Amino acid sequence: MRAEVSLAPLPGEAAQQYASVRDLTETLASPLSAEDQTIQSMPDVSPTKWHRAHTTWFFETFVLLPHDPSYSAFHPQYEYLFNSYYETVGPRHPRTQRGLLSRPTVSDVGQYRRHVDAAMQAFIEGGLDDDVASLIELGLHHEQQHQELLLMDIKHVLSVNPLQPAYRDDIAIVAPQPNVAPRWIEHDGGLIDIGHRGDGFAFDNESPRHTVYLDPFALADRPVTCGDWLEFIADDGYARADLWLSEGWATVQNEAWDAPAYWHRDGDGDGDSWRVFTLAGPKDVDPSEPVCHISYFEADAYARWRGARLPTEAEWEAVAGAQAPDGHFLDLAALHPRAASAGNLFGDVWQWTSSAYLPYPGFVPEAGAVGEYNGKFMVNQHVLRGGCCATPPGHTRATYRNFFPAAARWPFTGARLARGTA
Amino acid sequence: MRAEVSLAPLPGEAAQQYASVRDLTETLASPLSAEDQTIQSMPDVSPTKWHRAHTTWFFETFVLLPHDPSYSAFHPQYEYLFNSYYETVGPRHPRTQRGLLSRPTVSDVGQYRRHVDAAMQAFIEGGLDDDVASLIELGLHHEQQHQELLLMDIKHVLSVNPLQPAYRDDIAIVAPQPNVAPRWIEHDGGLIDIGHRGDGFAFDNESPRHTVYLDPFALADRPVTCGDWLEFIADDGYARADLWLSEGWATVQNEAWDAPAYWHRDGDGDGDSWRVFTLAGPKDVDPSEPVCHISYFEADAYARWRGARLPTEAEWEAVAGAQAPDGHFLDLAALHPRAASAGNLFGDVWQWTSSAYLPYPGFVPEAGAVGEYNGKFMVNQHVLRGGCCATPPGHTRATYRNFFPAAARWPFTGARLARGTA
Amino acid sequence: MRAEVSLAPLPGEAAQQYASVRDLTETLASPLSAEDQTIQSMPDVSPTKWHRAHTTWFFETFVLLPHDPSYSAFHPQYEYLFNSYYETVGPRHPRTQRGLLSRPTVSDVGQYRRHVDAAMQAFIEGGLDDDVASLIELGLHHEQQHQELLLMDIKHVLSVNPLQPAYRDDIAIVAPQPNVAPRWIEHDGGLIDIGHRGDGFAFDNESPRHTVYLDPFALADRPVTCGDWLEFIADDGYARADLWLSEGWATVQNEAWDAPAYWHRDGDGDGDSWRVFTLAGPKDVDPSEPVCHISYFEADAYARWRGARLPTEAEWEAVAGAQAPDGHFLDLAALHPRAASAGNLFGDVWQWTSSAYLPYPGFVPEAGAVGEYNGKFMVNQHVLRGGCCATPPGHTRATYRNFFPAAARWPFTGARLARGTA
Amino acid sequence: MRAEVSLAPLPGEAAQQYASVRDLTETLASPLSAEDQTIQSMPDVSPTKWHRAHTTWFFETFVLLPHDPSYSAFHPQYEYLFNSYYETVGPRHPRTQRGLLSRPTVSDVGQYRRHVDAAMQAFIEGGLDDDVASLIELGLHHEQQHQELLLMDIKHVLSVNPLQPAYRDDIAIVAPQPNVAPRWIEHDGGLIDIGHRGDGFAFDNESPRHTVYLDPFALADRPVTCGDWLEFIADDGYARADLWLSEGWATVQNEAWDAPAYWHRDGDGDGDSWRVFTLAGPKDVDPSEPVCHISYFEADAYARWRGARLPTEAEWEAVAGAQAPDGHFLDLAALHPRAASAGNLFGDVWQWTSSAYLPYPGFVPEAGAVGEYNGKFMVNQHVLRGGCCATPPGHTRATYRNFFPAAARWPFTGARLARGTA
Repeated sequence: MRAEVSLAPLPGEAAQQYASVRDLTETLASPLSAEDQTIQSMPDVSPTKWHRAHTTWFFETFVLLPHDPSYSAFHPQYEYLFNSYYETVGPRHPRTQRGLLSRPTVSDVGQYRRHVDAAMQAFIEGGLDDDVASLIELGLHHEQQHQELLLMDIKHVLSVNPLQPAYRDDIAIVAPQPNVAPRWIEHDGGLIDIGHRGDGFAFDNESPRHTVYLDPFALADRPVTCGDWLEFIADDGYARADLWLSEGWATVQNEAWDAPAYWHRDGDGDGDSWRVFTLAGPKDVDPSEPVCHISYFEADAYARWRGARLPTEAEWEAVAGAQAPDGHFLDLAALHPRAASAGNLFGDVWQWTSSAYLPYPGFVPEAGAVGEYNGKFMVNQHVLRGGCCATPPGHTRATYRNFFPAAARWPFTGARLARGTA
Repeated sequence: MRAEVSLAPLPGEAAQQYASVRDLTETLASPLSAEDQTIQSMPDVSPTKWHRAHTTWFFETFVLLPHDPSYSAFHPQYEYLFNSYYETVGPRHPRTQRGLLSRPTVSDVGQYRRHVDAAMQAFIEGGLDDDVASLIELGLHHEQQHQELLLMDIKHVLSVNPLQPAYRDDIAIVAPQPNVAPRWIEHDGGLIDIGHRGDGFAFDNESPRHTVYLDPFALADRPVTCGDWLEFIADDGYARADLWLSEGWATVQNEAWDAPAYWHRDGDGDGDSWRVFTLAGPKDVDPSEPVCHISYFEADAYARWRGARLPTEAEWEAVAGAQAPDGHFLDLAALHPRAASAGNLFGDVWQWTSSAYLPYPGFVPEAGAVGEYNGKFMVNQHVLRGGCCATPPGHTRATYRNFFPAAARWPFTGARLARGTA
Repeated sequence: MRAEVSLAPLPGEAAQQYASVRDLTETLASPLSAEDQTIQSMPDVSPTKWHRAHTTWFFETFVLLPHDPSYSAFHPQYEYLFNSYYETVGPRHPRTQRGLLSRPTVSDVGQYRRHVDAAMQAFIEGGLDDDVASLIELGLHHEQQHQELLLMDIKHVLSVNPLQPAYRDDIAIVAPQPNVAPRWIEHDGGLIDIGHRGDGFAFDNESPRHTVYLDPFALADRPVTCGDWLEFIADDGYARADLWLSEGWATVQNEAWDAPAYWHRDGDGDGDSWRVFTLAGPKDVDPSEPVCHISYFEADAYARWRGARLPTEAEWEAVAGAQAPDGHFLDLAALHPRAASAGNLFGDVWQWTSSAYLPYPGFVPEAGAVGEYNGKFMVNQHVLRGGCCATPPGHTRATYRNFFPAAARWPFTGARLARGTA
Repeated sequence: MRAEVSLAPLPGEAAQQYASVRDLTETLASPLSAEDQTIQSMPDVSPTKWHRAHTTWFFETFVLLPHDPSYSAFHPQYEYLFNSYYETVGPRHPRTQRGLLSRPTVSDVGQYRRHVDAAMQAFIEGGLDDDVASLIELGLHHEQQHQELLLMDIKHVLSVNPLQPAYRDDIAIVAPQPNVAPRWIEHDGGLIDIGHRGDGFAFDNESPRHTVYLDPFALADRPVTCGDWLEFIADDGYARADLWLSEGWATVQNEAWDAPAYWHRDGDGDGDSWRVFTLAGPKDVDPSEPVCHISYFEADAYARWRGARLPTEAEWEAVAGAQAPDGHFLDLAALHPRAASAGNLFGDVWQWTSSAYLPYPGFVPEAGAVGEYNGKFMVNQHVLRGGCCATPPGHTRATYRNFFPAAARWPFTGARLARGTA
């Protein structure tokens, strides 16, 4: 299941890696109609065809145009239309208006991808120096991130439709299973090192590796489940101000949250029966599954209600660093969190940590435009760890730092409890 | 050019009329991709596929379901999805979220239309009583209104795209012509009757015919042109508070208006060169054409600047009532206002009147849900008269009352001057 | 009770008229603390001290500075701070920020008033030419309008305070009386003239006098009462979409209106017991009193529910023109609508008419800055007639046109029914 | 200058401490008119009279009502009106509407303070158990925080007034001095302990004391000055996206920031001459003074531009812990930052740290309602250290953690540079 993208030294293998990542994007888009691929259901969401074009733009802008003299841009305005947030590259189409573009069409975007892929394949076959190989490697990891975004975005797009359509009709829905109690994984704390060791690919925000001091602690051996969450709801968790951060409580009231995103009370509204919208369409809530699509505010309130807390990212990494990054990652037959094997910290749901997303001591962003990739988002976000059921296999690792604002619920976000043991 | 829809008494002819109106909608949608038909570029705009479905819903909801026992609804949720504003029919999908629906797809909507059309044809062939014939007649006029809306909405959708795509690439763009000075058409005023006489189809808001007293007045023999408007701009018309209604002036400043909608300064921004976005794509502003896509606020300010005023709807009708309703209406080869023959009050652009949209004395809305068609909008709007280059031929008449809020610019709106002559 | 302000030809009398109007403003402000006079409880409301300063600014700006060479401005920045909306005069402090000014203090404003009053008295004593006399006359009518605004604004300010303080504690609250059924006043219609005849003071918007044609109609002999309104509420008037204009229905839902402004259900919320906030503090709703603080939307919906309609302003004036403008106007012992004598069209509540506020045929605004007084507001408002319990006696007349947007409820607004009788 | 409030064991001394803190609040309010004390100039700001009442409410609610059986509440609705954010206490008047209350008046609030003070003095004289003594101690520290808030809030209130009034007219304005270059204070890092040691008063968020590991680092020996900042502006610091966090850059553009809050270009706008609004009114920017009223975004961008960074709160405390907390704190003769002695970490401006405001490992909030004091705000804020020119002397200490959102500029916020030295 592990297939980390670290670009191969031989052109042939590199070209195959490139093709493999690029193809997965097209596979993920393939069940979607032109209409599906055009919709932006809220400002955070991007249309599928935008993801397909923007990941292509990345290779065109950072690899082909500066490094391949024979390459000519596919369309003069795509640099403007498909720049996401790179100030260094120039002005760009506003993020909130990505859903207003009927052109280029889905078919045009397909042509754009084929144009760039052909040029990239020829370019790779011609041999790469290390810097360009690094850029391509970054581009492939970038595309993998957008594969996950594509799935979480289209889930939101489909969910706002009263018809509640499935992303694919051929995903089997598993029967609900009973909830299983969690156990604690103990850790002695002390001086430990976290951050990337320098072998293989990593994003700049995972470096430098550095020392932190930890008090003794324990982590739950499984994520918080839907069964756990039903108890929180039953105990009026969404109605007790004392459990919540002040900003979380305000959000609960403004947004009228009374359950995770995509949960709806079934029929008679008696409260013990919930349905959840998934990429396979609506189904019954399964107590055994990791709860998903919760905000940091909810994760934090839940932990407080349980008399526990969320782990710091250092605590999480101290435990996860000893594990192989295996688990329930992107699997076209599932696309939903499942009960995982006890003690495994990876997969199913991104786990909110109590750590704000900040630079590691001595952090230096990448040089050039790709230095805008991570560092400039280091404020008012929290770190999530572990990868999820929409993360391409091989994309994540123990040092991987994902991040979202505290109110975000549309990613595949969940929680794992921690507690001090001093 | 005249083809008023007044349903024929013979089933065969009626069925042909029905087919003819319905086919035009499909013709208008046919140049548009699935992506084009899905976008809602602002709250006032509806996606093309929504127009196609809603006009179909009208026949399903008001004709087939109540009157044809053999009919079964195409889809149980379409009543909810494609109700525009009929409170009597039940709850409905929010107007501002019409652009969030990727399903039903464009192809599904096509199927829906064919399903209803087949049922309608069979139903019409079976013979109609007067009440049902009236409903169908209303439905066809309703669909003609949406044909115009479809065009003005897709124009907005395409205009917000930086690629500035044309609706169709095969519309000839005519070379600019010089502006021609207007003359005055005099009228003696006195007691005159306005409103529908009772022969042929009319909307309920055109009745009852009633008496009004008018002072002597004159109307310009042609609409205000782009050439006229360039003079207004050159004289700082958009920068002089004294010319504007207070709410208009606030709008000019909030929206940073400095020209009609769809106008853009060309290149060097020296002010004497303007481009305008049309359904055929961008072209140079043509001084001889009626100015289009102006708000009531702009029409009113322009008239004040010229030392004139806008006509009341009674004044307009007093003159137009003597004319045949001919002019530049919907013409697939043009789709843009053109210089009209002097003295003709119809076509090219809807002309803002100074009259607020209010009920005529003794006005009674239609019975039932279709009574929500007009009456409930009679506040905070102004009446427009005359029809435009996107109005299906035969759809309008001298008594026809169109209406929009004073800030609306996305319809094909223009102006004709008036003045008192007492 | 009638004391129309039409400036006397003799300086001594004119000076006395001036003093009398100016003194009433101070009398109205006198029960209010410095804190009361500083608050702006919503964008439409102005602080009491702003009203006191702005009415003073009017005389300083339009009379003293241009016409009295010996006058020097009280403070260089007051022209900016106390300009309401006169674009011709120059930039101004934003309306929505009037409540952010702690300085000038209430005491500073008192000094400003005395400074200008002393200069005005000396100036008047020196003799006035006709133009300046007209400006002073306008200034006094302007100040009377602000006396009414001061009262309706402070009512709103006090109402948003959970302490529900009274404007004055010494106003007697009258015991509720039973409701009395209305009768109809018939009118034959035909050609009638409306608008100001030219004798005595009038605002420019009341001219020119002109002919209109009316169908036969009838007006109710009293305004709609609170007793009537309780029946409307009891019949679910606020919950039936079919009774409302579309924009009115949206407002009812957005604002959660279920009664006139300032009404609150008493205690147990069983629905037959209502309290109303008045300038004397909260009291029981009195069925015999004219209902007050209703929007145009509510007046229109109520009339439809009764099977009637609102009058046009021409109908209202056709009947009122034959009456002396007597009634319950500003009375420091009441400050609240009371049951009026049958058939009297004046006083207690401003009556919404179905007429949009538009220029009369041939309307020409005043020359100069004071021409901004009325004409530039002639869009998206409705005309109200009759004056109210906060209108200074002598300020209104049969031709007087008040105007507010359809959603306004903080003025003393009510309704009188009409119906066609052809 | 140091006068830490740690409640004395003897009733007489305790009563004197109570009186001393309470009197300072009244001294700070005394230059302000009733109008000044009523205004809320933005949602973050509270009116002066609200601060005076809320600090009084704290003693009434948490000390007198639960612990003094002889006490009766001053007014039944004050619990509702003057609760700031304590969910446990019950519902409360919305924060954004504090400026809508003209009653209770400033004079009523004075009476409220005297009523509670008399009861508190009697209660203290009667002897206190430890728990109640702790609550009173907390109440006095709470009031000191509001003394600072009162000053920063009234500064904003006065600043939005075009008259630019001073808080007091008798504060001497010092002539500008030249800027002095900073030096670095080196620190070896390693394992250090931070957090409150347990002697004397501290807020719950300063505990528990715990170990952190630090790399070697250096701190600047003085805060960033206005002179430094003028260089940043001159080098287009506010116009270079590459210097800013993404959210900071968006804020700069939305708010059109081009200098710290309260700075305005002087007259001709040539850019080298700036004025700044202070509590003594407008004055020239002084290059030698610590720059003040900058957001976290600006502090962070400035540090990046200098090739440095902001310190973490642990780094700051590692150095400050060895110093006595002396410096330029609240001084009625200054009320503005001044150049401080080199190497002193305290006073003049609160210094933004790069640390997000999060719980220390093992953090437990206070029991009861006062547990809402700190913990529930631990998200989306940054820690500031050091105290400022509006902080009462003795109120702050090396472990004191102040916190604000990253965009806040109305507190007395500044910056001190740091850098790694490994």
